[in-house]
Amino acid sequence: MKTYAEMTREELQGEKDRLQARYDKYMSQNLDLNMARGKPSVEQEEASIEMLDILNSRSNLNTEEGMDVLNYGNLTGLKETKRLFSEILEVPEEKIVIGGNSSLNMMFDYLMQCYAMGAGEGLEPWVLQGGCKFLCPSPGYDRHFGIAEYLGLELIPVPMTDIGPDMDLVEELAKDPKVKGMFCVPKYANPTGQSYSDETVKRIATMEAAPDFRVIWDNAYVIHDLTGRHDDVLDLLSECEKVGNPDRAVLFASTSKVTFPGAGVAVLAANEDNLKWILKRMDKQTIGSDKINQLRHVRYFSNGLPDVKAHMDTLAGIITPHFNVVLASFERKLRPRDICSWTNPNGGYFISLDCMEGTATRVYNLCKECGVTLTTVGATFPYGKDPKDSNIRIAPTYPSLEDLAIATDVLCIAIRLAALEKLLND
Amino acid sequence: MKTYAEMTREELQGEKDRLQARYDKYMSQNLDLNMARGKPSVEQEEASIEMLDILNSRSNLNTEEGMDVLNYGNLTGLKETKRLFSEILEVPEEKIVIGGNSSLNMMFDYLMQCYAMGAGEGLEPWVLQGGCKFLCPSPGYDRHFGIAEYLGLELIPVPMTDIGPDMDLVEELAKDPKVKGMFCVPKYANPTGQSYSDETVKRIATMEAAPDFRVIWDNAYVIHDLTGRHDDVLDLLSECEKVGNPDRAVLFASTSKVTFPGAGVAVLAANEDNLKWILKRMDKQTIGSDKINQLRHVRYFSNGLPDVKAHMDTLAGIITPHFNVVLASFERKLRPRDICSWTNPNGGYFISLDCMEGTATRVYNLCKECGVTLTTVGATFPYGKDPKDSNIRIAPTYPSLEDLAIATDVLCIAIRLAALEKLLND
Repeated sequence: MKTYAEMTREELQGEKDRLQARYDKYMSQNLDLNMARGKPSVEQEEASIEMLDILNSRSNLNTEEGMDVLNYGNLTGLKETKRLFSEILEVPEEKIVIGGNSSLNMMFDYLMQCYAMGAGEGLEPWVLQGGCKFLCPSPGYDRHFGIAEYLGLELIPVPMTDIGPDMDLVEELAKDPKVKGMFCVPKYANPTGQSYSDETVKRIATMEAAPDFRVIWDNAYVIHDLTGRHDDVLDLLSECEKVGNPDRAVLFASTSKVTFPGAGVAVLAANEDNLKWILKRMDKQTIGSDKINQLRHVRYFSNGLPDVKAHMDTLAGIITPHFNVVLASFERKLRPRDICSWTNPNGGYFISLDCMEGTATRVYNLCKECGVTLTTVGATFPYGKDPKDSNIRIAPTYPSLEDLAIATDVLCIAIRLAALEKLLND
Repeated sequence: MKTYAEMTREELQGEKDRLQARYDKYMSQNLDLNMARGKPSVEQEEASIEMLDILNSRSNLNTEEGMDVLNYGNLTGLKETKRLFSEILEVPEEKIVIGGNSSLNMMFDYLMQCYAMGAGEGLEPWVLQGGCKFLCPSPGYDRHFGIAEYLGLELIPVPMTDIGPDMDLVEELAKDPKVKGMFCVPKYANPTGQSYSDETVKRIATMEAAPDFRVIWDNAYVIHDLTGRHDDVLDLLSECEKVGNPDRAVLFASTSKVTFPGAGVAVLAANEDNLKWILKRMDKQTIGSDKINQLRHVRYFSNGLPDVKAHMDTLAGIITPHFNVVLASFERKLRPRDICSWTNPNGGYFISLDCMEGTATRVYNLCKECGVTLTTVGATFPYGKDPKDSNIRIAPTYPSLEDLAIATDVLCIAIRLAALEKLLND
């Protein structure tokens, strides 16, 4: 089978006509399919549904330390919740603070604190320093970039590689004292699905940077393996401690993609001084997060990490077929044309697809017109602008396998049509 | 019976000796009693305990609009949650935003936004204006003052009267463009238990103030009646709208003292422009708060306000006897001595006691040494300093009636001892 590069103009035109006919057929079907957000499916929710039966009016509602979870109190989280996350994150309990239902909320609040009050005792607030910048490995998570943009920080894109952000560039950029930090999804990154190498983690810990440079280490997919293979990522907190930069990083995670997306438990972890600084704020911000939901989680995973891992295996059994539908379709329909590339991650929630440069927006629109919603092109880049107009984030979890097969077929047709339009117009 | 003012020095000394003997007797009992925080009792929690049975794995987990509460989505709150709070707060649904489990958290986040990003579109952030001040009706809620102090605002005390803060002084102070707002607990105020008169509310709405002056209208006790009598307070949001100051106020409330203190549902309400400004921040801060807990609440109060009111009547039946133990004891043991005054509120969580000037710290310490913990003296004033060393906030809800009777007896002895020490030393 010829690649598009090998085809004559006539062959390309013939291919385009054939695909256009298939596209038109889909157009007539009034599809309404969505691959835009990394949203767990109903089957995934069902896998946790018995968590709703864990606590009822007849339950013992005291923690292992004898605290009544219904009442006020407990700023940093229940001891048993910390222990569970300590096992999941491989971070000591005493570094952990439990939050509400959203790790995004914890990140926002932390960055807001750095911005308005400074990143630590005696450090000038970013708002008063003016002109502060933040490194954004791209493609990355749009909601990360959204926080920094809201705070008026300048977003600096850094290309992602298959072992993390381009560290030569990061090291160069971080020398600027106005560069105040970096967003990282170190494991099964959103959206590339790739993980940071040990060298990347060590370089982040060691590099020269401002004293108030802060890495937002969003370990959202820390236990979210999909395949037999799984990636291992070094713990940045201890790496930073080792090299004398203990305050460089703050870790975030949640059970949003373990139990219930809208009602999980979020967590942060940090070294001593950062923790003190964060708790100084939280002590004024709240009396404490929802302890009933914390207890529900720890009682549901009563054996700790082994229960969580078994649960994640169940989820992988649900999710992996979704990934496989997309990947098999890409392999069959796109690989032979040699017009794009995509990632095949060992875990996480996304496949990152790079279309032919300059065609991603066209692909998005072709899909949209046909009733297939993709993540907005550019969303994975700072300011929503993909400089190559090439990247599309595929979120295969939410649609049913049947819908996903159709949506992926439409997507493959759109990718090929957009490439053909470009090749024929050049 | 003679008041202390009518007693001779010898009579005072005799009284002191008698009380000292009773105090010493308590000292030997190793008491451990706490009247410090406005914490609901276990019986109050029990009154809501069946809320834990409302949702389980067999429940319909869709909202009335068909949204799955387990998954992501819904920034501002479920339609049915807004409707419930609309009835409770007497504020239109479209002004309402639902939060997590803590209204304090919503207040903190709002004030942080005003501080770091400004109080509205085009308004300079308070942090950049520098030297901003906040009015603190006192005695008031220590956690309010804590937020403003954390942000480095200058706290300006304003004396409370039995119809709200001293409005002559508020009007005068608010003319200063650096004065950026005021904390108000308009109904059954913390700690006085008194409510704002219509005139007070109207004067707050109408007075001259900076364009970014914001009233934190913490309606924490909006339906928390204790007696047959109940106070009515005007809606500040609509009063502000009427007089052309629509952005002056933001309202906060929660079910922390309706259902579960640690796992209730918090809410804010604001007029159009404030709401837009707040949501602009929240849209970056979170995907949405815990919808399962929202659904649990609205299903528990399935008939809306009548169910909530019946529930509050049940709670009043539990709480009122606690107030009565304290008030009856004060009436019998303190009234005849004419050395202090206290409030007798129609609702809320506190009794505010004014001891003889200059003796509150001594009363606190006498109680403390005897194993009875009171709210820290001064906590109800900015910077934790009561200028008259007189006010003590009594929180009668949490201890059992038996414990409360003992604690109150110790307190009355301490109040009288401290007064006698002062009178004998003068």
